[in-house]
Amino acid sequence: MGTVPLLSDDEAAPEARAVFDEIRATRGTDYVNNFWRALAHDPALMRATWDRLKIVMEPGELDPLVKEMIYVAVSTANGCSYCVHSHTSAAKAKGMTPEQHGELLAVIGMAMQTNGLVTGLGVEVDEAFQA
Amino acid sequence: MGTVPLLSDDEAAPEARAVFDEIRATRGTDYVNNFWRALAHDPALMRATWDRLKIVMEPGELDPLVKEMIYVAVSTANGCSYCVHSHTSAAKAKGMTPEQHGELLAVIGMAMQTNGLVTGLGVEVDEAFQA
Amino acid sequence: MGTVPLLSDDEAAPEARAVFDEIRATRGTDYVNNFWRALAHDPALMRATWDRLKIVMEPGELDPLVKEMIYVAVSTANGCSYCVHSHTSAAKAKGMTPEQHGELLAVIGMAMQTNGLVTGLGVEVDEAFQA
Amino acid sequence: MGTVPLLSDDEAAPEARAVFDEIRATRGTDYVNNFWRALAHDPALMRATWDRLKIVMEPGELDPLVKEMIYVAVSTANGCSYCVHSHTSAAKAKGMTPEQHGELLAVIGMAMQTNGLVTGLGVEVDEAFQA
Amino acid sequence: MGTVPLLSDDEAAPEARAVFDEIRATRGTDYVNNFWRALAHDPALMRATWDRLKIVMEPGELDPLVKEMIYVAVSTANGCSYCVHSHTSAAKAKGMTPEQHGELLAVIGMAMQTNGLVTGLGVEVDEAFQA
Amino acid sequence: MGTVPLLSDDEAAPEARAVFDEIRATRGTDYVNNFWRALAHDPALMRATWDRLKIVMEPGELDPLVKEMIYVAVSTANGCSYCVHSHTSAAKAKGMTPEQHGELLAVIGMAMQTNGLVTGLGVEVDEAFQA
Repeated sequence: MGTVPLLSDDEAAPEARAVFDEIRATRGTDYVNNFWRALAHDPALMRATWDRLKIVMEPGELDPLVKEMIYVAVSTANGCSYCVHSHTSAAKAKGMTPEQHGELLAVIGMAMQTNGLVTGLGVEVDEAFQA
Repeated sequence: MGTVPLLSDDEAAPEARAVFDEIRATRGTDYVNNFWRALAHDPALMRATWDRLKIVMEPGELDPLVKEMIYVAVSTANGCSYCVHSHTSAAKAKGMTPEQHGELLAVIGMAMQTNGLVTGLGVEVDEAFQA
Repeated sequence: MGTVPLLSDDEAAPEARAVFDEIRATRGTDYVNNFWRALAHDPALMRATWDRLKIVMEPGELDPLVKEMIYVAVSTANGCSYCVHSHTSAAKAKGMTPEQHGELLAVIGMAMQTNGLVTGLGVEVDEAFQA
Repeated sequence: MGTVPLLSDDEAAPEARAVFDEIRATRGTDYVNNFWRALAHDPALMRATWDRLKIVMEPGELDPLVKEMIYVAVSTANGCSYCVHSHTSAAKAKGMTPEQHGELLAVIGMAMQTNGLVTGLGVEVDEAFQA
Repeated sequence: MGTVPLLSDDEAAPEARAVFDEIRATRGTDYVNNFWRALAHDPALMRATWDRLKIVMEPGELDPLVKEMIYVAVSTANGCSYCVHSHTSAAKAKGMTPEQHGELLAVIGMAMQTNGLVTGLGVEVDEAFQA
Repeated sequence: MGTVPLLSDDEAAPEARAVFDEIRATRGTDYVNNFWRALAHDPALMRATWDRLKIVMEPGELDPLVKEMIYVAVSTANGCSYCVHSHTSAAKAKGMTPEQHGELLAVIGMAMQTNGLVTGLGVEVDEAFQA
């Protein structure tokens, strides 16, 4: 599938190739995944996405593994299979154990379930929960 | 709003009241939030939900605060405002700082954005991401 | 809330008022709910929606109550609170008991949960399930 | 695809194999579908999911075929292709005719459409719909 | 994949074949895409969908290319990969340039992101935005 | 509702107040809407969001009104009522007529409907649609 072809290094514009190189340097691997090869069709959008992603995912008050698990959670709820695969892979690379993966899935499943119950019941937000 | 009325302690069946009491004991507060007062119309569903929630959210390989943030992430992607409010409140009670809240939101926003880009581009999963 | 004002009978165009009258006749009540009063701003869209809704929801191979519960299920997964309220109300008017409502919610919750697990695990469709 | 490999009977832990056996006995077939082979990586999550699924989907106030159609409706709205396939298959096994399948799809399509119209119009819930 | 087999011209009922012919005539191509070959199992649903689609997508106050881009936007947010592919293809056929495609994706990504931030923050609608 | 309180100009940090001022200057109005007053709790996230939003929504290959309508379409599919209200309001300010609003809603409804049909049928992407 694909609504645009994936661009090889040779096919990409210099501005896109520069992002490929930064991705390689940041991750310490020569491999550039399909998402970036598709996004390379629009070097400005690719640059803005990469620059922002680096800042958002770097160590901060939350550690990078926790951030990857949050990323997986959102991607799962949105049904983005590619994103689930890429960020589960990234989480494993950052040390996610099979047991942590199982707990991540259990929390996602629980949240999905109560999201459905709450919406089906039409529950109004408690005043106690309002900031 | 509400597709069922919220049940007070007096209106709830004994099986539902028993869950109210466990919620109070577990949380160390007399307050029982609207979700449980709505779910009390079906004591069996309420009991199954509460029993499972307790197990899923207890400390394990992931700490309870991380679990609450994953819960918020799923609930946000699903657009369940009640769940966002209740689990953001729970996360704060478990020590989430404003800085951590900001990073949680930043990761959610980033994931939503790339979920959209990936789906719009129709990117196929890299073999490297498959287990 | 509302991105357009709700139109009273007097404010609506004759083509929209004609749909109001059909809704009243079909349902045997003078009350016209907010959705139609908002949609009345575009009489052609309103007419197309009403004409199709009547056909889709009439008794067929599935009975009208089952159709209403399917409607509630979709609306819940999509987080459309208005639709959950209006079609839960319609289901009750068609005889949905509190016990059936509880089972409907239990199935919705179960489906939401396994939707999350399946997507998080990236499970591929079994050949056995393909038509 | 898959974020975890599918486990064969030999690769699964005894607790997971026990669930495989219950699935076979309950369904009267030797075939165990991919979802359970993926979930087998976390036998406790697998057990909790299976035990709950059996209770939720058994005959009650709603018949099992209606429950399967509700499951398909939720899975469709959530865009879970695997779940749509597995539960459409289950619904056919429980007697869903092509005509019923067509009506199920028509109601899903209608609900999706009015979910969009209602949200786009920002319609507020009528007092008449509140329990 | 597929929950129903795709129907060839020979396998389809006369009422479905008639829609195939209208699709060919309207689009000026002999090719009929998979969606219609699947939907052909229910000729009445197929007819209602095609008749409505033609009216909704024809030139009006919005030009057909803008309509296709809105269609892609909705389909992306709903995670419907098939729909993203078919309507991106239709948009290209109606003249969407690579630069416009890039801007479409950028707006989709931005909207997804702020959808997440707004829901995570639980922001209430400003009175100024209410009609 | 709200998971954080809205910040007045006096309560906001100088970095957030600077963004308030840019919003006022860009829009030519003194009014700053609730989203920015909530986001002001995290001035860095607020700044990144505002800077990107300005670039994405400025006139380009697509005109600003088309961009607003795409924004409304995504927000509707995601069920973000706040975003639907704010961007419908922005679209009207940029000249969207009631007739264009009606067509926008009709396309959204049509897309939602066929998204559901396609997913329910499990239709595979035609080779002809792949780039």
